[in-house]
Amino acid sequence: MSRLSLNQWTTRPLSVAEAVDGCVRHGISSIGLWRDHVAAHGLAATAALVRSAGLRVSSLCRGGFFNRPGWLDDNRRAIDEAAVLEAACLVLVPGGLPEGSRDLAGAREHVASALASLVPYAAERGVRLAVEPMHPMYCADRGVISTLRQALDLAPPEVGVVVDCFHVWWDPDVLPQIARAGSRIASFQMSDILDPLPADVLLGRAMMGDGVIDFGPLTAAVDAAGYTGDIEVEIFNASVWAADSDEVLSTLKKRFAALV
Amino acid sequence: MSRLSLNQWTTRPLSVAEAVDGCVRHGISSIGLWRDHVAAHGLAATAALVRSAGLRVSSLCRGGFFNRPGWLDDNRRAIDEAAVLEAACLVLVPGGLPEGSRDLAGAREHVASALASLVPYAAERGVRLAVEPMHPMYCADRGVISTLRQALDLAPPEVGVVVDCFHVWWDPDVLPQIARAGSRIASFQMSDILDPLPADVLLGRAMMGDGVIDFGPLTAAVDAAGYTGDIEVEIFNASVWAADSDEVLSTLKKRFAALV
Repeated sequence: MSRLSLNQWTTRPLSVAEAVDGCVRHGISSIGLWRDHVAAHGLAATAALVRSAGLRVSSLCRGGFFNRPGWLDDNRRAIDEAAVLEAACLVLVPGGLPEGSRDLAGAREHVASALASLVPYAAERGVRLAVEPMHPMYCADRGVISTLRQALDLAPPEVGVVVDCFHVWWDPDVLPQIARAGSRIASFQMSDILDPLPADVLLGRAMMGDGVIDFGPLTAAVDAAGYTGDIEVEIFNASVWAADSDEVLSTLKKRFAALV
Repeated sequence: MSRLSLNQWTTRPLSVAEAVDGCVRHGISSIGLWRDHVAAHGLAATAALVRSAGLRVSSLCRGGFFNRPGWLDDNRRAIDEAAVLEAACLVLVPGGLPEGSRDLAGAREHVASALASLVPYAAERGVRLAVEPMHPMYCADRGVISTLRQALDLAPPEVGVVVDCFHVWWDPDVLPQIARAGSRIASFQMSDILDPLPADVLLGRAMMGDGVIDFGPLTAAVDAAGYTGDIEVEIFNASVWAADSDEVLSTLKKRFAALV
């Protein structure tokens, strides 16, 4: 339970101040912050707030989207922000196909070179980059990196990986690739997956136990790979967002204790 | 163009007789039949109809769904039907998790043993089995076999595979696995994939050219692997089903000529 982290999008309607307060009241000692929420509260103010509240910052979400114009400047800003927040890593969502393009292989090569180009900038600022393989249903619009194997093959060795149960649970190759990842695991995230998927597949996440993922083997593999960092719960779900956030945090702790 | 086959679900509202008539009028020399449509027309009558129309039967869809009670008897019936229809293969959709189960590894092992158990029955009747790896977004509810690599690893060597562009386009490993599959490719299917996906992801297929798949590399790989059979166009799409079927067939031929 001491490794549980609240990813801020699980309680998306809450401001940074409200989310930090929720963590403190519920005894959650780590938080995964989102850049838009941080910007609304102010970067320096957020850093001061989480520090005075005694919270770790398990991740900053998110850089990446290398298919968008201006990606380089935006990712440098994200690295700067992660440094100020002393985030354990900066999560990089690879981005989908460029507008109007069908060149998937080219988009993937571009991600590889974009990651490599960010390594020195991040290293100078002491920020750990973490690329996130995404569920293949997001390949076109959100993440052309589809498996952990591919992320490990394609990213420079200095770049870590995010293991998000929602994105990788289906992969027949996931357990050996978690073992292979070893110390490159920079973030471990979880949420369940709904079956059937809702109309907006981006919101197909659910509280652990409300979907079909068996978290035991994935957690055991990440443990065996040597990962000892925080475990973030990241749920994009319209019902969770509409619910009372104190109830959400209570349920989250119970499910985490029971299933993880 | 002589290898183009109409998968019957592309023109789902048409009866067997209407679909066969459409193929003949549009110069399409092969058809992929669906068991429910065949049952409605009668098995022997369908076999006689396609033969007299001079059509090949590129596949019978579908057996599988090994997670459902009664799967063994149902698959034996499907094999019997494929034999009568002289279908080039029987497409096997693996099925998802059993009701209420989260045991993905167990479901996959069950598919492997179910496939093995069907091999002698199919061989005695001269029917080629073809297991279909499904897009991971269907893993829970429709197909626990998620990649071509997994299908080739898990199925007995007598069982062929379906390469469906819609299901495999995202897979970073797909081209080497197509090469590896070689003579095990029993069916080559195509449709595009919509971006964004519609509310019912089962209907996320589209006419080639209306989505984001680049068919060139996939077709070249299947050719290079030695596959010389029919190429089925299989589109599950509410707008296509609502459209005039003669227009659908005309468009389909144009797109096939331009993109495949």
